[in-house]
Amino acid sequence: MPFTLEHTDSKTKARTGVFKTDHGSFETPMFMPVGTIGTVKSLSPDDLKSCGAQIMLSNTYHLYLRPGTEILEEFGGLHRFNRWNGPILTDSGGFQIYSLNDLITSSEEGVEFKSHYDGSRHLFTPERVVDIQRSIGSDIMMVLDYLTGNPADYDTAMEAHLQTLRWAERSRNHLNSTKPLYEHQQFQFGIVQGGTYSDLRKASADGLMQIGFDGYAIGGLAVGEDAPTRRKVTDECTDYLPENQARYLMGVGKPEDILNGIELGVDMFDCVIPSRNARNGSVFTYSGKLNLRNAKHRNAKGPIEPGCTCYACSNFSIGYIHHMLKINEMLGLRLATTHNIHFYLQLVKDSRKAIKENRFAEFKQEFLENVNR
Amino acid sequence: MPFTLEHTDSKTKARTGVFKTDHGSFETPMFMPVGTIGTVKSLSPDDLKSCGAQIMLSNTYHLYLRPGTEILEEFGGLHRFNRWNGPILTDSGGFQIYSLNDLITSSEEGVEFKSHYDGSRHLFTPERVVDIQRSIGSDIMMVLDYLTGNPADYDTAMEAHLQTLRWAERSRNHLNSTKPLYEHQQFQFGIVQGGTYSDLRKASADGLMQIGFDGYAIGGLAVGEDAPTRRKVTDECTDYLPENQARYLMGVGKPEDILNGIELGVDMFDCVIPSRNARNGSVFTYSGKLNLRNAKHRNAKGPIEPGCTCYACSNFSIGYIHHMLKINEMLGLRLATTHNIHFYLQLVKDSRKAIKENRFAEFKQEFLENVNR
Repeated sequence: MPFTLEHTDSKTKARTGVFKTDHGSFETPMFMPVGTIGTVKSLSPDDLKSCGAQIMLSNTYHLYLRPGTEILEEFGGLHRFNRWNGPILTDSGGFQIYSLNDLITSSEEGVEFKSHYDGSRHLFTPERVVDIQRSIGSDIMMVLDYLTGNPADYDTAMEAHLQTLRWAERSRNHLNSTKPLYEHQQFQFGIVQGGTYSDLRKASADGLMQIGFDGYAIGGLAVGEDAPTRRKVTDECTDYLPENQARYLMGVGKPEDILNGIELGVDMFDCVIPSRNARNGSVFTYSGKLNLRNAKHRNAKGPIEPGCTCYACSNFSIGYIHHMLKINEMLGLRLATTHNIHFYLQLVKDSRKAIKENRFAEFKQEFLENVNR
Repeated sequence: MPFTLEHTDSKTKARTGVFKTDHGSFETPMFMPVGTIGTVKSLSPDDLKSCGAQIMLSNTYHLYLRPGTEILEEFGGLHRFNRWNGPILTDSGGFQIYSLNDLITSSEEGVEFKSHYDGSRHLFTPERVVDIQRSIGSDIMMVLDYLTGNPADYDTAMEAHLQTLRWAERSRNHLNSTKPLYEHQQFQFGIVQGGTYSDLRKASADGLMQIGFDGYAIGGLAVGEDAPTRRKVTDECTDYLPENQARYLMGVGKPEDILNGIELGVDMFDCVIPSRNARNGSVFTYSGKLNLRNAKHRNAKGPIEPGCTCYACSNFSIGYIHHMLKINEMLGLRLATTHNIHFYLQLVKDSRKAIKENRFAEFKQEFLENVNR
């Protein structure tokens, strides 16, 4: 088993653990910076390490379109191509096909979609998605899932869950009947669907556990539902899922969403918010968000966050980053991204510490009071 | 005297030396990477250092418009603002006003121009340009010069030289009657004009030497003349200029132009070519240029230049940089820029070594044979 549960907070469901891969281990709860097409936008692998990253996320769908599996295989997989030598998790692309409106048809066989780059047509089956992730060589691969937006009516949500489950079984069978292309082991996570319906989520979780995966993701959230609903579904899912395996809440979210997820027993997170916000000049601090493009920051001599140890805060003033953003200088985007990724990684690091000290609830409350003050 | 001449090649006019500033020394011949508005596009100060940079160039005109002298003074000058703690040379802006077509009128008093950002009107006088460079705190400032494109008729070239000379005198007087705003010394270079006319160039050089500067630049080249003419004018100017002071050939150029300049006794160079070419995917190697965007590089597993010690070549394949450029990933631009800046700095480093060994002519010939093969 790649995941070892280490400690559960005495007052919440929050927990710490370690996930071990052939490219090294990562501690949980962990945030995975998103490098969709191989690179976290503007950051080198060394930058990413200096932010405290222990694992990065990339995307099967995007890598399949560019650079394509032929190139990835020629280079010996994504690790050798992008020079990130830590663990890599790849999402399957189900969410991208759904969210980019690239879907043409969906059938029992799989999903047909058109490339948003050149309009060419492609078929993703559960088996093909495993094969592509073999070419990528990710340490953790996700099954192809089928999702709907929220709210969805019961029948639609059930259909999505059942389709996801049937595909999950095919995915696992295909994984078991194929071998890694490179010298390292590849784990596979199932994805719980079922919309906002408790019984469907339970049936989905049970079905996946019966197949048996190396970890379980909660999918179909952050796609239109409100925060209380997201919380309820997450809470139920972590109850349904096995204690001793890793749980990954996909695509969530803001710092407060991450803390909610941790409180409910989630171990892994990813989201484009820290990097995307940074490119708009919006940075996170422990006392709330700042927009660095705002003219009031032009002569600010301090760092984004006093005491922050990230490369941006250790070296540059808010005023200079403001100047760079105003002149569209790439270094400004890089520094803002560096700070935000570091902020998220510091948040999960602080969370792990708080869990080990059985004071996660207080930590979370204090954080929320500070940022909303 | 800030400049110390160390060795002159036995067979050419090429020479080595050291230029000392309060922010450290730089060896000559030296290439100065261009950070127009404070940053060499895409590179942090640490990146720039890792390329081997010993001095950077920035631009009075651009910094005056953004962020403006008020901000620069509040931060205690450009070094504290952009966090480059080595020497900085600032060009005066004469060339930008000329080349950006921002000029409204030119008179004995100075040049009036409109900002290309917001259309606002501004007056640059020789004195004002010194004041702005006091606000910037550059280690080496350039006088405001007046230039024409090439070819220019004799009268136009004479007018440009005479105007430049009268402004140079006012510039020097103003420098001598003002003090640095920060704790370090600021040197000032005069600029030789006179188009392609030998007698005008001589008169210009003589006039400037009579005023007395801390170094001399050759201006008004790389603005339309052919290569043999550029060579002739450079050769004459270095004959006219004092042996024991630094000579700076402004805005030149390609690697072969740099080598020509070195051969003719030039000590300092700047040019946007390495950084601008990089952003178009064009990189320099000792066996000629490569366009990394070209599809033939998609599965190239080696570095841009085998044996190159730059960050890009030490870590990344051509194929991955190609992929990043195709997906418009900023890291691709940064790595290509890193390589090209490193290439230029390696070129002047190798030149210094060759000069010290009295084999600069052979070094230059070998380089040209390789790149043109």
